[in-house]
Amino acid sequence: MTAPLAGILGGMGPAATAEFYAKLVARTPAVRDQDHLRVVVWADPTVPDRVAAVLDGSTDPYPALLDGARRLRDLGATVVGIPCHTAHFFLPKLAADTGLRFVDMVAETAAALGDRTGRVALLGTRGTIASRLYQDRLPGVDLLIPPEPVQQDVDRAVAAVKRHAIGEAAAHLDRALRALGAPLTVLACTELPLAARHTTAPGDLLDPTDLLADAMIAACRPSTTDARVSTMD
Amino acid sequence: MTAPLAGILGGMGPAATAEFYAKLVARTPAVRDQDHLRVVVWADPTVPDRVAAVLDGSTDPYPALLDGARRLRDLGATVVGIPCHTAHFFLPKLAADTGLRFVDMVAETAAALGDRTGRVALLGTRGTIASRLYQDRLPGVDLLIPPEPVQQDVDRAVAAVKRHAIGEAAAHLDRALRALGAPLTVLACTELPLAARHTTAPGDLLDPTDLLADAMIAACRPSTTDARVSTMD
Repeated sequence: MTAPLAGILGGMGPAATAEFYAKLVARTPAVRDQDHLRVVVWADPTVPDRVAAVLDGSTDPYPALLDGARRLRDLGATVVGIPCHTAHFFLPKLAADTGLRFVDMVAETAAALGDRTGRVALLGTRGTIASRLYQDRLPGVDLLIPPEPVQQDVDRAVAAVKRHAIGEAAAHLDRALRALGAPLTVLACTELPLAARHTTAPGDLLDPTDLLADAMIAACRPSTTDARVSTMD
Repeated sequence: MTAPLAGILGGMGPAATAEFYAKLVARTPAVRDQDHLRVVVWADPTVPDRVAAVLDGSTDPYPALLDGARRLRDLGATVVGIPCHTAHFFLPKLAADTGLRFVDMVAETAAALGDRTGRVALLGTRGTIASRLYQDRLPGVDLLIPPEPVQQDVDRAVAAVKRHAIGEAAAHLDRALRALGAPLTVLACTELPLAARHTTAPGDLLDPTDLLADAMIAACRPSTTDARVSTMD
C-alpha cells in the first residue's frame, strides 16, 4: 500500500507556504526521513488576487485554484490543506468540484476556540473579514474586528511579508496588536505568523496554521485522525 | 505562455527541503505574490537511504527518485533542483532517463569555488564523500576531508536535524568545524545549514543550497540564466 500523501495547495503567498511546509515537517513526530509524511506542494503565486475577488469580484482565482487542486488529486493526494485563509472562501466549491478531502483551517480554528470567553481579536485580510469566514463560524465568541486604521496596519504587515520585509511587517503587526489590546488574537492570514515571531506586544496569539498542520498530520495517520475535513461525500 | 515552473525533488530530508523552498522564495526578487516563481515540490521522505546505496548498494533509491522526477516532468517543470547532495550521485542518470533539465548543485558549488587557494573543508554524508562527488570536480582545490572522529560529528549533526534536534545538531557541527579549523567550509549536506545558524565556530561557510536557489531562479528567468544545467541534450 502506498503511504498517504499530504497535498499543499499553496503559493498564496509563497513565504507563507514555505513556512507552513516547514511547520508540517517540524510538527511530525520523526527520528529519520522515512518517518515523515510524503508531501506534494503545488505553489502557484500567479493565482489572481483572492482579496480583490472576494471584495469586488474584479479577479477570479478559482480556475487557478481548481487547476492546482486537480493536479494534487491526480498525483494521489490523500488530504489537502490550503495555507491561505482568504482562499478558504472557495474551499466548499473546490471540494465539490474535485472530490478531494480538504482539511478546513477555519473549521479547525473555530473548534479550537470553542466557546471561549473574553474578547478575541481577528486579524486577516479584508477579504477574509468581509467574507465573514470566521465570524459566521464563531457566533458565541466576542470577536474584535479591527477598525479601519488598525486594518491598514494589518494590510501593511501582510504586504511587507510578501516583499520579504519581515522587520517592517513585525512593526505593523505589533502596532495593530497593541491598538486592539485583546487577550487573544487569531492570526487569520498566513503571512502574519512570519511577522509575529518578531513582535513584543502582550497577549496570546493563535496561529491557525499550527492547527492545519496538526490536522493534516492526523489525517495522514488514519488511526489517530480527528481532523475536520470537507469533502463532497 | 505559461510561466516557468521550478521543480524541487525533495524529501531528502524533509526539513532540508522546506528550508530550501523558503530560501528559493526569500532569494526571489519580488514585491507581491505574482512576482514569485511557480513551484512544485515532490517530497517523498520514504526514498530509501541514499548514503547506504552509495556506500554498499544495500538500498536502491533510484526507482523512487525516478518516479518523483517523472511526476515533476509530467507537471511541466521547467527546471528541477534536488536539495540533497548525496542524491546528486544519481543526477546524470535521472537527467538521461527523464529528459528533464536539472540544476546541478555540485557543479554550481565547484564553479563558485573555482581555483580557490587555501584549505577548504568538505562536510557531507559518508555517501557524498565516498562517491567523490566534490573531490573529482575540484582537482585544484586543497580539500580537507574530515578524519573519522570528525566525520562522526558530521553524521550526528545530520541525524539530529532529521529528528528536529537542532541545538544538538549545532553542537556537533560546531565541534567538527573547530576540529578542522579551515578558513572555508562547504556545507555539502542539506541538513547542515539548518544547524549552522546556531554555530559560533570561526571560519567562513559556503552553503551550496544558496547557489542552487539562485541558479534555479536564474533558470526560470531565461534572459539572465547562466545556471550549470544537466540535461540529456
